[in-house]
Amino acid sequence: MSRMEQDAETLIANMGARARHAATRLAGLPTADKAQGLRAAAAAIRADADAILAANARDVEAGAANGLSGALLDRLRLDPARLESAAKGVEAVATLPDPVGAVIDSSARPNGLKLSRVRVPIGVIGIIYESRPNVTADAAALCVMSGNAAILRGGSEAAHSNRAIHAAFARGLGDAGLPADAVQLVPTTDRAAVGAMLKADGAIDLIVPRGGKSLVARVQEEARVPVLAHLDGICHSYIDRAADPDMARDLAVNAKMRRTGICGATETLLIDRGFAGPAPVLAALIEAGCELRGDKDVRAIDPRIGAASEADWDTEYLDSILSVALVDGVEDAMAHIARHSSHHTDAIITEDAATAERFLNTVDSAIVMWNASTQFADGGEFGLGAEIGIATGRLHARGPVALEGLTTYKWVVRGSGQARP
Amino acid sequence: MSRMEQDAETLIANMGARARHAATRLAGLPTADKAQGLRAAAAAIRADADAILAANARDVEAGAANGLSGALLDRLRLDPARLESAAKGVEAVATLPDPVGAVIDSSARPNGLKLSRVRVPIGVIGIIYESRPNVTADAAALCVMSGNAAILRGGSEAAHSNRAIHAAFARGLGDAGLPADAVQLVPTTDRAAVGAMLKADGAIDLIVPRGGKSLVARVQEEARVPVLAHLDGICHSYIDRAADPDMARDLAVNAKMRRTGICGATETLLIDRGFAGPAPVLAALIEAGCELRGDKDVRAIDPRIGAASEADWDTEYLDSILSVALVDGVEDAMAHIARHSSHHTDAIITEDAATAERFLNTVDSAIVMWNASTQFADGGEFGLGAEIGIATGRLHARGPVALEGLTTYKWVVRGSGQARP
Repeated sequence: MSRMEQDAETLIANMGARARHAATRLAGLPTADKAQGLRAAAAAIRADADAILAANARDVEAGAANGLSGALLDRLRLDPARLESAAKGVEAVATLPDPVGAVIDSSARPNGLKLSRVRVPIGVIGIIYESRPNVTADAAALCVMSGNAAILRGGSEAAHSNRAIHAAFARGLGDAGLPADAVQLVPTTDRAAVGAMLKADGAIDLIVPRGGKSLVARVQEEARVPVLAHLDGICHSYIDRAADPDMARDLAVNAKMRRTGICGATETLLIDRGFAGPAPVLAALIEAGCELRGDKDVRAIDPRIGAASEADWDTEYLDSILSVALVDGVEDAMAHIARHSSHHTDAIITEDAATAERFLNTVDSAIVMWNASTQFADGGEFGLGAEIGIATGRLHARGPVALEGLTTYKWVVRGSGQARP
Repeated sequence: MSRMEQDAETLIANMGARARHAATRLAGLPTADKAQGLRAAAAAIRADADAILAANARDVEAGAANGLSGALLDRLRLDPARLESAAKGVEAVATLPDPVGAVIDSSARPNGLKLSRVRVPIGVIGIIYESRPNVTADAAALCVMSGNAAILRGGSEAAHSNRAIHAAFARGLGDAGLPADAVQLVPTTDRAAVGAMLKADGAIDLIVPRGGKSLVARVQEEARVPVLAHLDGICHSYIDRAADPDMARDLAVNAKMRRTGICGATETLLIDRGFAGPAPVLAALIEAGCELRGDKDVRAIDPRIGAASEADWDTEYLDSILSVALVDGVEDAMAHIARHSSHHTDAIITEDAATAERFLNTVDSAIVMWNASTQFADGGEFGLGAEIGIATGRLHARGPVALEGLTTYKWVVRGSGQARP
């Protein structure tokens, strides 16, 4: 292990110990105290707006000088409206129902023991993110409201912004009497610190990566701590023979083109050979500016469609490109989805309820939809009020994850002296 | 990678692909079909009793020749009564409520989308166990009933027994029309097969180790697949100043001495300095045959008590040995537990409800108990009907894990053509 790795390990171990201490206090706090802490953090962000925007201007300037792309600079940039939106987001989390202490279920045994499962925070959450500085406030708020301590590690390009936002947030928590160590920011942008977080099992209970595919891939590859994330969003929309043609056209266009860069965007359109109106659907997509790549039969429908290679079926374009295949009914569609889906979100468009239920029951993805746009795959749209991320793993929590997904449970057993026979 | 490791990887990849195929079918089966499959498996075990007992006799004979300890030989040994008990256990799992398809919660959005979270199987479960051949039937039954495919890897000392039980079980499943690949037994006892299972992320969704500490430690150290397990059961019973003296004595003796080798056995007794009757509690433990190790103040109570070293507070004896410390009230007890507990099961004995609730809320273990013996930490005692194991991790499932813990959920979204604005 290099000296830098050793230093990073020591740093994260120390931060983890302080975080555990803070987490123990947070776990016992009433909802009102956590909410008050978040409102104070939002107020501190507003009070520090000038300093935060000045820090952000330094990051943006350095980013431009270092040749960051326009899209990255846009993610990095804060303005008064974006900062106010971040503060409002923190206040909104403070209004969400608190899952901690909720009784999941309870029972009584014949011997008189009373059992219940009670929601408790997970403990210490590590958030590893890239250039969006608003994640600092957003992720911190979700962790605190769910009773967890957060260790934040933002991207180096946003270092000044993150420090300024974190300083305000932690001061606000402290003003409200919450432990300031509840939200800590890793003070270095060395990559070794990320490595140390990923290996800190025992100190960090869960890692949530927020960023692009290369970040998530590294985290999933190296982590010894459990990870909550999705790597790909290879989402499918399937137009069944019994689909309403107008709905099929509108949903296909929305699912692909509303925003092409989000993980819930449809990347492959499957069309039943028995569906009467494929041409208008494809024409609408092309007219909306989408490049289509299809198999031979699809290309026969519209000469403007290019050829799909085998790789296209496994590609998350995050762009105005869509792969299109014809399939023989719902079973064939589900077989394609089982082979190629990243198990994020897959949708069926049909007026046939039995076919829809077959699809909803069988497709094994975190989110399955009937007659709706895959672009709805989002914690806010699901009524969760926010999300820490969308998970495609099979354990703990799947799909959009908000406060409840940041809790676990313990068994509480109340007796009157029962000894086990 | 050695040739043996390559072969093991190929073997597990092939078994995993067959298991995934079977899991897809199992996931869609109605409860009655799964129950019928288990009843047929139990019948096949009974029909094969002679062959299974003969295979077991070969294992026991080889084990004795190889110098296995008496305790290990006892775990390995089957007799008609134990085999009937295994068959009955399989039938009992068939009567448990099926979690698959249960709706966890549902909601409707203002735009008319209807959301629900529906329980689904995890997928492919790898079970790695040691000398108890009854785990073959027991774990397989829990996996099948929860809609999961199982890949079983038993200990080499039970190889003939496991093969015979597995052959019956799989034939029974097949007789009932279930996929025989739903339960596969790794055909080799090479240790490389265990390594391949632990690294088979994507093919295996969850590993459950069933066995001693060295097995669990290896699995937790090497696994890239999520693991559901507990390493230690360093459980505490705390006698508060407000404890009923007779209840305290009876629970302390039961929590330690009923069975000393189980993970829910109390390993450290904490006694409030304000508790009036420590001497009778300690005397009752000594008279029950327990060796006590205490700090100086504890030894002053009874000269038969030996000296505890620092290591004693972190030791799972699994034997008739108990460490004992005096503490200054519930806060001090909880501080000791936070430092030394393995977060399996910790109990308070008190008549003071407020103190009890303080303990139940604050102690951050998978199971917390009030006025009950820690030996109740068991899926059967909790009314779950069975258990695949007890988990002390913080994610997914904690404490005794049975059918529900072997499921996850998916989001089902039903719309009427909603596009996202």
